[in-house]
Amino acid sequence: MVDLIEAAVAARRSTILRVGVIGAGIMGADHANTLRRAVRGAEVTAIADVDLGRARAAADGARAYDDAFALVADPAVDAVVIASHDSAHAEQVVAAVKAGKAVLCEKPLAPTLAQGRQVLRDIGSTGEALLSVGFMRRFDPGYAALRQAVDDGTVGAPVLVHNISRGVSGAPNATSELSITGSSIHEFDVVPWLLRSPVVEVSWVAPRRSSQVHDGLQDPQLIHLRTADGVLSTCETFLNARYGYDIRCEVVGETGAISLTEPARVRLDAGQRHGIGYPADWRPRFADAYRIELQAWVDSVLAGAPTPLATGRDGVVASAAAEAVIASMHDGGRVTKVEAP
Amino acid sequence: MVDLIEAAVAARRSTILRVGVIGAGIMGADHANTLRRAVRGAEVTAIADVDLGRARAAADGARAYDDAFALVADPAVDAVVIASHDSAHAEQVVAAVKAGKAVLCEKPLAPTLAQGRQVLRDIGSTGEALLSVGFMRRFDPGYAALRQAVDDGTVGAPVLVHNISRGVSGAPNATSELSITGSSIHEFDVVPWLLRSPVVEVSWVAPRRSSQVHDGLQDPQLIHLRTADGVLSTCETFLNARYGYDIRCEVVGETGAISLTEPARVRLDAGQRHGIGYPADWRPRFADAYRIELQAWVDSVLAGAPTPLATGRDGVVASAAAEAVIASMHDGGRVTKVEAP
Amino acid sequence: MVDLIEAAVAARRSTILRVGVIGAGIMGADHANTLRRAVRGAEVTAIADVDLGRARAAADGARAYDDAFALVADPAVDAVVIASHDSAHAEQVVAAVKAGKAVLCEKPLAPTLAQGRQVLRDIGSTGEALLSVGFMRRFDPGYAALRQAVDDGTVGAPVLVHNISRGVSGAPNATSELSITGSSIHEFDVVPWLLRSPVVEVSWVAPRRSSQVHDGLQDPQLIHLRTADGVLSTCETFLNARYGYDIRCEVVGETGAISLTEPARVRLDAGQRHGIGYPADWRPRFADAYRIELQAWVDSVLAGAPTPLATGRDGVVASAAAEAVIASMHDGGRVTKVEAP
Amino acid sequence: MVDLIEAAVAARRSTILRVGVIGAGIMGADHANTLRRAVRGAEVTAIADVDLGRARAAADGARAYDDAFALVADPAVDAVVIASHDSAHAEQVVAAVKAGKAVLCEKPLAPTLAQGRQVLRDIGSTGEALLSVGFMRRFDPGYAALRQAVDDGTVGAPVLVHNISRGVSGAPNATSELSITGSSIHEFDVVPWLLRSPVVEVSWVAPRRSSQVHDGLQDPQLIHLRTADGVLSTCETFLNARYGYDIRCEVVGETGAISLTEPARVRLDAGQRHGIGYPADWRPRFADAYRIELQAWVDSVLAGAPTPLATGRDGVVASAAAEAVIASMHDGGRVTKVEAP
Repeated sequence: MVDLIEAAVAARRSTILRVGVIGAGIMGADHANTLRRAVRGAEVTAIADVDLGRARAAADGARAYDDAFALVADPAVDAVVIASHDSAHAEQVVAAVKAGKAVLCEKPLAPTLAQGRQVLRDIGSTGEALLSVGFMRRFDPGYAALRQAVDDGTVGAPVLVHNISRGVSGAPNATSELSITGSSIHEFDVVPWLLRSPVVEVSWVAPRRSSQVHDGLQDPQLIHLRTADGVLSTCETFLNARYGYDIRCEVVGETGAISLTEPARVRLDAGQRHGIGYPADWRPRFADAYRIELQAWVDSVLAGAPTPLATGRDGVVASAAAEAVIASMHDGGRVTKVEAP
Repeated sequence: MVDLIEAAVAARRSTILRVGVIGAGIMGADHANTLRRAVRGAEVTAIADVDLGRARAAADGARAYDDAFALVADPAVDAVVIASHDSAHAEQVVAAVKAGKAVLCEKPLAPTLAQGRQVLRDIGSTGEALLSVGFMRRFDPGYAALRQAVDDGTVGAPVLVHNISRGVSGAPNATSELSITGSSIHEFDVVPWLLRSPVVEVSWVAPRRSSQVHDGLQDPQLIHLRTADGVLSTCETFLNARYGYDIRCEVVGETGAISLTEPARVRLDAGQRHGIGYPADWRPRFADAYRIELQAWVDSVLAGAPTPLATGRDGVVASAAAEAVIASMHDGGRVTKVEAP
Repeated sequence: MVDLIEAAVAARRSTILRVGVIGAGIMGADHANTLRRAVRGAEVTAIADVDLGRARAAADGARAYDDAFALVADPAVDAVVIASHDSAHAEQVVAAVKAGKAVLCEKPLAPTLAQGRQVLRDIGSTGEALLSVGFMRRFDPGYAALRQAVDDGTVGAPVLVHNISRGVSGAPNATSELSITGSSIHEFDVVPWLLRSPVVEVSWVAPRRSSQVHDGLQDPQLIHLRTADGVLSTCETFLNARYGYDIRCEVVGETGAISLTEPARVRLDAGQRHGIGYPADWRPRFADAYRIELQAWVDSVLAGAPTPLATGRDGVVASAAAEAVIASMHDGGRVTKVEAP
Repeated sequence: MVDLIEAAVAARRSTILRVGVIGAGIMGADHANTLRRAVRGAEVTAIADVDLGRARAAADGARAYDDAFALVADPAVDAVVIASHDSAHAEQVVAAVKAGKAVLCEKPLAPTLAQGRQVLRDIGSTGEALLSVGFMRRFDPGYAALRQAVDDGTVGAPVLVHNISRGVSGAPNATSELSITGSSIHEFDVVPWLLRSPVVEVSWVAPRRSSQVHDGLQDPQLIHLRTADGVLSTCETFLNARYGYDIRCEVVGETGAISLTEPARVRLDAGQRHGIGYPADWRPRFADAYRIELQAWVDSVLAGAPTPLATGRDGVVASAAAEAVIASMHDGGRVTKVEAP
């Protein structure tokens, strides 16, 4: 009889992934909500945050922890989403993977390239199979359509990619380096993914610095990426562009060009203008991408299939590009080679 | 012990809605796939089609039936999606509701107003609580944003609504009447929903008839709706517009206007043009709407909450408008009152 | 020697058209400026206005008159632009034509159809050759491109035309009738010109009336035109749309659709929106059209060629449509035949 | 009596500028036509081309010369437009200015910086007052609106400018250097004009080279300009972009961004796409700019006022930037200072 119960429970378990979410801040709470409302096959069974009250507020019936490692050890947790402070990612990834749990770690995998590499060494190649990194742009329908177009030769062989990433206002503690490792890193992942060619060389240049930002932050920044296929990609990152959260990407090929549209659903005619609205930040802009990414992750974990998300190695590769950009920044904008991961 | 097993199974049942899909054509197969891939809390346990082979092809592990009523009677079916031929809807709705199952019936509820009313009488007010009708535009993010804008007074009090509904090519058997009951009916539902005011009067007028369509079909058609609030809505329906599937809606208010954008994700520059692509038909255009609608339906059924979808009564109301438009068509375009449902 | 002087002066005269402008209000002053700054072959030699001060202010070296008929009689005036009050057009046209001068009369030719017909009778067929009417939309590059596309069959045979004409605020004395004879009349001219087919039937319908307008004015209005080719054209006129001066026209054909773009030169990203600006009124919107129209008029008069502008007869035809629309308005929106000019 | 004739002729001359056009190729013929059809106050009295047949074909009543210097010497020529081969500009400018005639020289003033400087030395400061250079983008309504917006602070202080200049196919003899001196030079003029700040530093980088171009041409190219105000401008020049003639410019400021729109007049829905057309080359794109520029030039010459066009000095300044960009190209993309003119 107990066998029957266990079989029933196991049957259920096999189709429901019990997810623990580490970090109950904006991103973690968002992931928990998406998992609860819009992802099939998942259940949020636990939430951890250093601030227990915040964990409880986001728990909605799940267990609340103030200790990420306790969540990792919880037998009711099959898989872990890590959306804690960037500085905590590495240690939590290692613990969760070692506990045999599938992990979706928000980018960055680790604050530095060296730490990212250490994570891969710590978890080993078996552990790598359990690890995904949250570069959600790969799941944005716009970026996916760009990649399909490149694969289809819709614009001929690519020669140039122009990326623009503008936000309303950066974090109060943003520095020039954090702009690169925290924001531009999305381009360091998505460009080689679009082109199916790794970034081999980078350089950095400073536009005029906005007078609206504090010392210690060069904003905007302009970064060049050279991929192995010879294509040049420009990346403008402007954390404090004020006017809206605006992400652009154009792939220029030998016979045409293809670019993201603004994903607004309505157009307003008012006050002697017509136009569409910008979101205030990345969450509405990439809500579809996060949902599709989480669904793909849950599906792959339940199926025991390789992750369709960015891997831990992809995360390290992006960090290597970021580190090279920072080196270029500190070296007068010199063209700098990217180290192999 | 048996109690424990049953409790475990019941617990599972309470969070998983077992859905039977009637109709394995384009729409039914699409709904089954969406339920299986992108809707949480649902499981497709049965599919019925008059063509058993088609049912089997779409089953993917679910039971296949060639008899809709057998599917309705299946105890492994908690709720039913009806996507069969329009002429079969009424009977199937009544059977499923009488079996105590929640029903999502694709529009139209019934081919005629009289039959729609009969469905409501047959199922009674208790049955009505189990019935939803698939006017998916209510769940399209664009239409939802329009309605929110109207509610917020973003463009002032509405005075006019312009609707355009163009497709690539109509069904081979399309008639002028079917264009109204099968296509324009979406506007007859969405306009009063947008304005929160019922359609009270309609009229019909024929543009020049496209030479590309067969006899018996006036295409395009232009329809006027007057809602109780005095707002006039124009509805162009053009089944054979050839160039693409193009749905437009603009609400003109006393201080501004707001309209749907084209939901394309990328823009292409090629061949001396820049532009965005149209879908070939309604499915890609309303994929989000269908997914969100199905999720809302599943959530509400599992929660035992009133349906957030269009109700059976809404379906009858739209049919009443359609019937009045057909009457106007047969009466030289006369302004015609819409009967109370 | 005198002969030589006269020959030199005559030679000059033959390449310079000396234009007198009647009316120094917004439209008249605008025409005078355009003639002076951007039209080759023209010289403004006289300006008349009932308010002599206003005439003097706009004169810029030309003679100022407070009497239109004195201007007409001035031997230094070869041709006359009439931009006075609508009610004065008819009489001034007749006087100028009878003085043998080429005339460009702003629309409308006369306040009523009967008066328009009387003008044609008064000037006779020889006089008609001297008369042009200022329906400038025919010279707007957008409308010109629409017409070319129709001629080229770019969208197949037309079936429907949608026109929208919205302004910021109507004149304080605007009435429902003046909205038709003063504003919608542009569509009554441009639609048959686009389609090369006369308007034969019209009807009128009232949307919800904006609460922001005074009694006696139905605003917006919706008008249907049926041309002899069977095409239906919808015309929304909304004098007090508040949000901007917005002119739209879409020709829907059997294989595609073509429409005007907004003629903005720059796009602004600011304040969480992106968008383009609307002009405050018709002058910036149609500045190109007025310039091109005036140049075409001057060129044709200097060349002694038939006018490429709308003729007096075209003006009467548009008035006949306007009168039929007013009749429909007073008759509950009945479909009303347009009288032959 | 002769005095009277001369007075009459002089009076006429004072209001009509008699223009000689050197070069009857695409650009020269275009200028002649624009002057004849759309510019007031000008008359084309002579055309010269090394190919006399071509000069005659474009003459339309004007005198045809096969010798530019004979045209310059013609007393019926008050002012000269130079649209001959780039290599002939310098010598013709000097001759025309020395003959006391106002000159509008198409860009470039001379093939090299040294030759451009020599022109200025040869004509002296009095001669400079007679010289204008045809950087027509300054008269494009879009660029003019961008500059006004910068002046008005519409987007806050500029930090970055993105320029894109794509054509369908480059000249068969195009080289990497000619791409810079013949095409990118437009940006070297318009960027400092927009920002009211001179270019002080440049650098050059090669995207992947299109396989569709011949040896000896790097296409596309990416150029960075640093103006004295610290603003960074990116300039992509892609002569063989194939898909259309596409000019973009975006000024990014501290609080917003403003950019050119595509100046298409109509939008087409056809073939499962909606979109607008690109011109095949620069002439339709900048037709307004050329017309407005020529009118401004003629007006200023007739008024004896300083030229509102780019000056000879502006031409040399742009050449200095071009030369620095070529130096950067030959030096591995090094950041290179621009020499003072």
